[in-house]
Amino acid sequence: MTTVERILPTDEAHDLLALATELADRELAPRVADFENRSEFPREVIRTLGRAGLLGLPYPEEYGGAAQPYEVYLQVLEILASRWLAVAEAVSVHTLSCYPVATFGSESLRAMLPEMLGGDLLGAYCLSEPQGGSDAAALTTRARRDGDDFVISGSKAWITHAASADFYNVFCRTGGAGPTGISCLLADSGTPGIVPQTAERTMGLRSSPVAQIAFDEARVPVDRIVGDEGAGFRIAMTALDAGRLGIAACAVGLAQAALDYAVGYAREREQFGRSIIDFQGLGFLLADMATQVSAARALTLAAARLRDRGRPYSTEAAKAKLFATDMAMRVTTDAVQILGGAGYVADHQVERFMREAKVLQIVEGTNQIQRMVISRSLAR
Amino acid sequence: MTTVERILPTDEAHDLLALATELADRELAPRVADFENRSEFPREVIRTLGRAGLLGLPYPEEYGGAAQPYEVYLQVLEILASRWLAVAEAVSVHTLSCYPVATFGSESLRAMLPEMLGGDLLGAYCLSEPQGGSDAAALTTRARRDGDDFVISGSKAWITHAASADFYNVFCRTGGAGPTGISCLLADSGTPGIVPQTAERTMGLRSSPVAQIAFDEARVPVDRIVGDEGAGFRIAMTALDAGRLGIAACAVGLAQAALDYAVGYAREREQFGRSIIDFQGLGFLLADMATQVSAARALTLAAARLRDRGRPYSTEAAKAKLFATDMAMRVTTDAVQILGGAGYVADHQVERFMREAKVLQIVEGTNQIQRMVISRSLAR
Amino acid sequence: MTTVERILPTDEAHDLLALATELADRELAPRVADFENRSEFPREVIRTLGRAGLLGLPYPEEYGGAAQPYEVYLQVLEILASRWLAVAEAVSVHTLSCYPVATFGSESLRAMLPEMLGGDLLGAYCLSEPQGGSDAAALTTRARRDGDDFVISGSKAWITHAASADFYNVFCRTGGAGPTGISCLLADSGTPGIVPQTAERTMGLRSSPVAQIAFDEARVPVDRIVGDEGAGFRIAMTALDAGRLGIAACAVGLAQAALDYAVGYAREREQFGRSIIDFQGLGFLLADMATQVSAARALTLAAARLRDRGRPYSTEAAKAKLFATDMAMRVTTDAVQILGGAGYVADHQVERFMREAKVLQIVEGTNQIQRMVISRSLAR
Amino acid sequence: MTTVERILPTDEAHDLLALATELADRELAPRVADFENRSEFPREVIRTLGRAGLLGLPYPEEYGGAAQPYEVYLQVLEILASRWLAVAEAVSVHTLSCYPVATFGSESLRAMLPEMLGGDLLGAYCLSEPQGGSDAAALTTRARRDGDDFVISGSKAWITHAASADFYNVFCRTGGAGPTGISCLLADSGTPGIVPQTAERTMGLRSSPVAQIAFDEARVPVDRIVGDEGAGFRIAMTALDAGRLGIAACAVGLAQAALDYAVGYAREREQFGRSIIDFQGLGFLLADMATQVSAARALTLAAARLRDRGRPYSTEAAKAKLFATDMAMRVTTDAVQILGGAGYVADHQVERFMREAKVLQIVEGTNQIQRMVISRSLAR
Repeated sequence: MTTVERILPTDEAHDLLALATELADRELAPRVADFENRSEFPREVIRTLGRAGLLGLPYPEEYGGAAQPYEVYLQVLEILASRWLAVAEAVSVHTLSCYPVATFGSESLRAMLPEMLGGDLLGAYCLSEPQGGSDAAALTTRARRDGDDFVISGSKAWITHAASADFYNVFCRTGGAGPTGISCLLADSGTPGIVPQTAERTMGLRSSPVAQIAFDEARVPVDRIVGDEGAGFRIAMTALDAGRLGIAACAVGLAQAALDYAVGYAREREQFGRSIIDFQGLGFLLADMATQVSAARALTLAAARLRDRGRPYSTEAAKAKLFATDMAMRVTTDAVQILGGAGYVADHQVERFMREAKVLQIVEGTNQIQRMVISRSLAR
Repeated sequence: MTTVERILPTDEAHDLLALATELADRELAPRVADFENRSEFPREVIRTLGRAGLLGLPYPEEYGGAAQPYEVYLQVLEILASRWLAVAEAVSVHTLSCYPVATFGSESLRAMLPEMLGGDLLGAYCLSEPQGGSDAAALTTRARRDGDDFVISGSKAWITHAASADFYNVFCRTGGAGPTGISCLLADSGTPGIVPQTAERTMGLRSSPVAQIAFDEARVPVDRIVGDEGAGFRIAMTALDAGRLGIAACAVGLAQAALDYAVGYAREREQFGRSIIDFQGLGFLLADMATQVSAARALTLAAARLRDRGRPYSTEAAKAKLFATDMAMRVTTDAVQILGGAGYVADHQVERFMREAKVLQIVEGTNQIQRMVISRSLAR
Repeated sequence: MTTVERILPTDEAHDLLALATELADRELAPRVADFENRSEFPREVIRTLGRAGLLGLPYPEEYGGAAQPYEVYLQVLEILASRWLAVAEAVSVHTLSCYPVATFGSESLRAMLPEMLGGDLLGAYCLSEPQGGSDAAALTTRARRDGDDFVISGSKAWITHAASADFYNVFCRTGGAGPTGISCLLADSGTPGIVPQTAERTMGLRSSPVAQIAFDEARVPVDRIVGDEGAGFRIAMTALDAGRLGIAACAVGLAQAALDYAVGYAREREQFGRSIIDFQGLGFLLADMATQVSAARALTLAAARLRDRGRPYSTEAAKAKLFATDMAMRVTTDAVQILGGAGYVADHQVERFMREAKVLQIVEGTNQIQRMVISRSLAR
Repeated sequence: MTTVERILPTDEAHDLLALATELADRELAPRVADFENRSEFPREVIRTLGRAGLLGLPYPEEYGGAAQPYEVYLQVLEILASRWLAVAEAVSVHTLSCYPVATFGSESLRAMLPEMLGGDLLGAYCLSEPQGGSDAAALTTRARRDGDDFVISGSKAWITHAASADFYNVFCRTGGAGPTGISCLLADSGTPGIVPQTAERTMGLRSSPVAQIAFDEARVPVDRIVGDEGAGFRIAMTALDAGRLGIAACAVGLAQAALDYAVGYAREREQFGRSIIDFQGLGFLLADMATQVSAARALTLAAARLRDRGRPYSTEAAKAKLFATDMAMRVTTDAVQILGGAGYVADHQVERFMREAKVLQIVEGTNQIQRMVISRSLAR
């Protein structure tokens, strides 16, 4: 495997990355193929990560977090993603799902954080809808007030952890049209009227099933609102800024794994009497792949450091998500190419990597949405 | 669906394309999803195409062919590929497998052609080996002479129709090292000692299973040699030139289907209050995709016309294969992107298209091999 | 030089291409560097081409044309462009400028065609304006009726042959706002009030100076209207469809020249003990360049054949212009790279080629406009 | 202009960047067009930068340097490059030229450093030769020992500051074939037998003329050797690692300037009734450009931080040079496209930017050489 030269801010960060690497090798790598084949979510693996302290990295220690900068958290994500993308994405989504409560939640809601960050309560983030993929502000899931409850009706789509989550952040319309009519409610998974649907048959990332969730007069107590009424859209967008960094880190890890696999194969495989890596035709392709991976990592961590220092980072996060995921799509596709026919069969991980990469260009705002975010910042 | 403006050389060609379109709609489109799910080869569909006269298009009428120029044959392939790539690829591989006999075979071998071209005998092309993917001249499957038989031992890999074929073109070493020691033998599928192995678990094109074939002292009569002893490599390379055009046409058809599907979706799907095709962000992407598809088709047919006129076309065939299949990989990946999350699930064909496109960059010479062919022609 | 395998429709076409090649080698190649250095338009070279019959190729013989299909005309253009882009572009613009009269002009206007097509009268095409580059329908140059004259006032920009032309197609507003208020007037260059401005200092194509033209109460007789009043925009757009094919052919010729030059250099130049073309790092790059050139040529000629057969070709012409000019930009940039430092100095033609390629992505509708044309055809 | 969010390590770094910005605006921006037109090297401007302390940023304070980390030095370079690439490149080359003496020089040689770093003595770096562009280890300029002198004969090519430099690092063969026969000599510009040739006519960067230098029995005292005899190639390669970071930073600055210019234009320019930046067709293109610039900056600074911490950084420097300069070529070409016809004329800076970008893909090792460096590190 190629070595990644990392500059880390603290010794603690070194230890965390070493721990992540050890867990990734011991708990993730041996299981990924099997869970992917069975399209089964590895709930216990997530719990293991939680016990090891890897689920609450960027959150305050008082809530059971590790108070790590995003720069460190993202590199942990990257390592997890290099072994099992679905697990890394689960950690990213869970971290995203804890964000509203941790940042905007009432004290009573924040009391749930230790269980969330410890991995006992798994979260889901219910924003997208069947009709409004990219146009989140137009969402139609409605929550009407009835006594001390909100009563939610509607449908959410593309929900990671739909069937495995213990709590849902439900973004729904409590007021009029547009972004200011949206609130964020924290619902428990057992709530009557909240019904996860059959999982989608996806191209990859199958051990992290996504599904629609139907809300049919589901009652959630009014004190389960996160932040102010009408603040939901702002909360969702703020959380997404951080979530995009998570996806970017996942893409970097996935692409690094594909690069490492292809390099390993190209060193071993001989054709025309020598290692195929020694032919410039493949060697230059690998060089371009390696360059792209390094650029994506650097861009992602640069955006993270802006966040860590309290600087504006929304545009840079969009750039990182856009660049890293487009890069991962190309690099994984090229990694298959390096292996030739061997790359097209399930015996080699690169086949899985390429199927997985595609989803990263779509989630947490398609890459077209990222371009909208960036171009608007330029137009200002 | 977008309309492709085609200029065809004859009225007969118009009729053939109309027939192909009708069969594609009636026999292929309704079955593809099911066969892909079951990884089952549609032997009967191939027979139907044979009865309709679509299996021997570029071959002489005296052998049951249709004496069509490649320019027409490839557009038939393209149409089949737009509905079911595995079937189009089967037609392409079968046509390739008939080529050695039709072009270099003895009279007695050519007597088999009517059954081949009519679809009763399905062919396979056994060139690649586990250790020598791209370096065909180094193949190690050996055929020693024993009385009136060749006795074949060795192993072939990535064989389309491995388990379904009725006859195999087996390229094997009857002489010394290097290209001139290779001969082409025509073996029947029932021959003792020819054992197709378990099919590979591939990323896509699953209804056209590929597998290794083990040759264990398999006896083939000496009169089953195609062309002269030692001529095998030249036969293989000549056949591949034509085969590459077939793959290029498959890529064009697949990409056209992906484009059509994405255009259809983008016209219907509304976000932010209008059809998403009306946003330049997607509209320009679709325009680029459409441009690439048109360029690949034009390049492929231009190379075909060179072949049809007896002009050198080997380099242009390599360019067509390279360009069309790289194009198909990009266009199908972008088609998934146009659909967003919907594109990532099996409910929409683009998910299949993208998985299928990858193999086209690898078969009949990886695109790296094509670049070698082209750069050598420039260096001369 | 690499050989381009061409399939031509007639012996006459062969002769025309041979003639064009001979003239290009004899009249163009020896002069280009000098005229480019002096930013001087080679009026006499154009006249020579006219006398040889190369200025009226696609027009009827009764007007002094050669009645050639566009497929042939474009390959002549391509050959001229491979030696001297400014001359090929001049031929393309002149051909465009003859189009309105030849297609929509009154009999008396058409009487000028023999002199136009013979090269005695050089044309310019005055559509763009300083404020309305891409939005032609919004043009503001006005022509008011005054007795038997139109009196033109306004300003045109980016006019090829501004100072060298003998006649101008002036697209100006004779009616209300929008496309239907525009007419096409044919003005002579000596007309008082028509004042070409100082030529622009352009990155390349300097021997074809472009300039603004000021119209200050310039009087043009009413019988100099081409087509009906209000038909100007439609005439302009129809002419542009054909003009785009001309630019595409220019791009193909320029890129072919760059490829040929780079191949020649890479065969001769030795580094690390062998010809640099034998290193896959450069060989594969050249292979990709050659593939792109072939694809652009095939696409351009396919669109031309549609036009020649009276089929709809507007969208395919836009694709050809888009693809061929983007291709030429990349290929010429890479040709400089193949030469390394040598490519960056004026001693080698590739330096000029790269500077010239850029303008092709901009003229006759920027490539963004082409994408609009294509995406609208998909959206219909 | 878009704002670049920078995280700088110290307040001193903030002050340095502010100073560089002020000098760039006051001394560079107003002069660049004029000097470029006249192909004149701005020797006085370099002296001004030297007096301001900007020529010795990464060198020890004891020699008149500023002891700044490369991370800071490169951002200063970037700012200079955004106003006047030739000046930034001059600073980069000068810094490179001081490197051998500062790092490997004898005490007596190092005594020259204050004058070098203060801008009184300008340096040149004589490595490339007419026949051996990329294959530096094969250089043939020879230095034979004669008494207390080396006597140099041969020819160097592509030498920045050839005619303006006060001292030359001359890499020449003092021993046998191969890299270990090469030494580095420090020669004064007045030395008899050292004759700069006529400057090359380059596509851009004209205010930094490059030329061949003829060495005809030029005598240099033996104590002018830098480092050990035979250590020249190692010195050259080590210096190049750092020099590549300088070129990468120049590319980032140039591309940022092109992006800023294009954004400014696209905000102001209206077509079809609104600012063209509000059309996604251009907005998304600008978003991609901005993303690429950010990625190149992040990658370059990440490599610089490795160097600053004494970690291996050679491969990452090659990646940064490769990525940043390929990026700058694309971004400047697209910036011209954003302006359309206006971008193609010298009135707008983007015309210059695009011509300048090309050279960056070639100097300090072509981008093909960078790919060799990277692929070899992967193959190890």
